[in-house]
Amino acid sequence: MEDKYNLLKVHIEKIVALTEEEFAFVKQSFIRKEYKKSDCIFKEGENVKYIYFVLSGLLKLYYTDENSKEHIVSFAMEDWWESDIQAFYTNGDASFTLECLEDTELLCLSLENFERMCNNLQKMERFFLRKSIAGHIGSQQRILSFLTSGAKERYEQLITRNPVLVQRIPKLVLASYLGVSRETLSRLFS
Amino acid sequence: MEDKYNLLKVHIEKIVALTEEEFAFVKQSFIRKEYKKSDCIFKEGENVKYIYFVLSGLLKLYYTDENSKEHIVSFAMEDWWESDIQAFYTNGDASFTLECLEDTELLCLSLENFERMCNNLQKMERFFLRKSIAGHIGSQQRILSFLTSGAKERYEQLITRNPVLVQRIPKLVLASYLGVSRETLSRLFS
Repeated sequence: MEDKYNLLKVHIEKIVALTEEEFAFVKQSFIRKEYKKSDCIFKEGENVKYIYFVLSGLLKLYYTDENSKEHIVSFAMEDWWESDIQAFYTNGDASFTLECLEDTELLCLSLENFERMCNNLQKMERFFLRKSIAGHIGSQQRILSFLTSGAKERYEQLITRNPVLVQRIPKLVLASYLGVSRETLSRLFS
Repeated sequence: MEDKYNLLKVHIEKIVALTEEEFAFVKQSFIRKEYKKSDCIFKEGENVKYIYFVLSGLLKLYYTDENSKEHIVSFAMEDWWESDIQAFYTNGDASFTLECLEDTELLCLSLENFERMCNNLQKMERFFLRKSIAGHIGSQQRILSFLTSGAKERYEQLITRNPVLVQRIPKLVLASYLGVSRETLSRLFS
């Protein structure tokens, strides 16, 4: 149990150092939850109560169009944060669905606890600023990947940035993320 | 001159209140620059020294593909921030070009001054956290707009969020942002 929270501590301390007392305060702001493969954390149209820090497992965040086709916005695995951030910060409804691709364990942070942490511990405000900038950069890169015409180029960008992620994602899901057929993906792989 | 910086003060004070002394410190962190319509603030491959707060004018941030086709990532006008944020925060080269669609006046903030401000004034760290979250939300919305199939829907989303912006953007540029021909855009307008 302690060990699991240790992943969060190591993660935070890459950016800011915390005393034992400070980390105890941070820790109690989170709720730990377990999900099975194929469980949905939230679905499109539902209220989004938390941002999630992934302790183990793999998630996909996706949008479903009017033809029921899935479009993947992003993936998240251990040591990453994920949510429908607009819905979370504005207390609105989800535009996306967040689903487990593997059995997954999450630390869940509510908006109330997020704000309490920032108000009481300047280091955590700094931490979240750095993470938010990183998230914003990630989104700008995903936009760039939409604008980049070639699927081969998109695939190469992804494998350069996240080789471990690419190994773990089912091929059909990866093909969907890249916007290509499974056959095209097989050609890229070889 | 004072009046111009007042736009920045009002902008910041929507999130955090500043004393006169604090604002004087904030103000001296910025350099003011003027550009003409069609000037490029930075081009793809160049070093990105600043994030920009727009005092007046209109900008487009775009990616140019291997066929020299422009793909627009985002627009920015008065009271907005803009930059190639990955290049800015990582001291890397620009993936995008930032170009003026109108005569434009900017307040420019270097990474060094950004960090000095955050280190010396917690309120500004809070301010940038809120703006960074807003920027991240904006990028997630732009990703959603790529995943949303209909150009009509994308157009309606844009006009709902930013009616003033839509009025000011040349129609050909707007068509490029929406990924449609000018003829299709004319049909959407009517």
